[in-house]
Amino acid sequence: MSDFAKLPQPPYYAVIFTAQRTKDDEAGYQRMAVHMDELAAQQPGFLGSHSTRSADGFGITVSYWRDRAAIAAWKRQGEHLHAQQLGKDKWYARFSLQIAKVERAYDFQK
Amino acid sequence: MSDFAKLPQPPYYAVIFTAQRTKDDEAGYQRMAVHMDELAAQQPGFLGSHSTRSADGFGITVSYWRDRAAIAAWKRQGEHLHAQQLGKDKWYARFSLQIAKVERAYDFQK
Repeated sequence: MSDFAKLPQPPYYAVIFTAQRTKDDEAGYQRMAVHMDELAAQQPGFLGSHSTRSADGFGITVSYWRDRAAIAAWKRQGEHLHAQQLGKDKWYARFSLQIAKVERAYDFQK
Repeated sequence: MSDFAKLPQPPYYAVIFTAQRTKDDEAGYQRMAVHMDELAAQQPGFLGSHSTRSADGFGITVSYWRDRAAIAAWKRQGEHLHAQQLGKDKWYARFSLQIAKVERAYDFQK
C-alpha cells in the first residue's frame, strides 16, 4: 500500500508533473529522484507528494505546496536547478508541468 | 511514447485522482476504465487526460476540464455514478480526489 500524503483543507497548490522518461541513465535518474524527494520535503511550504510511473516510463508526480511563493522558491533552489537541467538533457523525452490551485478535495478509504 | 493531451492555455481545471487499487477484479476494472475514458471524452468541456499506474497498483489520473460546471456534470453522469459506486465497493482500497484550477502550464519536448 502506498503512502498517501496528509494534506490540509484547501486551498493549497498542486504542481502536476507529467513526463515520459527516455531509456537513458536509469541509475542516475533514480538516485536524483530520491535526492530531490528528500530535498523537496525540507522546503518551506512543502505539504506532500504522490508519484507513480508505469512500465513504459510514463509517469505523473503531483507535489503539494502551501502557496505559489513556496513553489517559486523550490523552482529556484540550486540543486533542483541542476536536476532540472539534467532532466532536459538526459532523462525526459517530454514533460508537462502545471501549477494549479486546489479548491476542493475528497478522500475515500475502506 | 505515451500521448500527451493537447491542452489550451490556462486557466482550465484539473481533477487529480490518486488511487490505490485493491487486487480484486482486474478484468472488470480494466473494462470499466476503458469505457469511462471513452465516455469522459464525449462530455462537454472535457479537454484531455493523463493516467499512469505502477506495478503495485498505485495510480494517478489527471483529467482536464474547461470549468467546474463541466466537472460537476461528469460527476453526476449516470454510468459514471455507477462506476464510482463499483470503485468504492470493489476496486479501490483508498483514493483522493482534488479539483484544482490550473493557473500556469509549461511544456518541454526534445
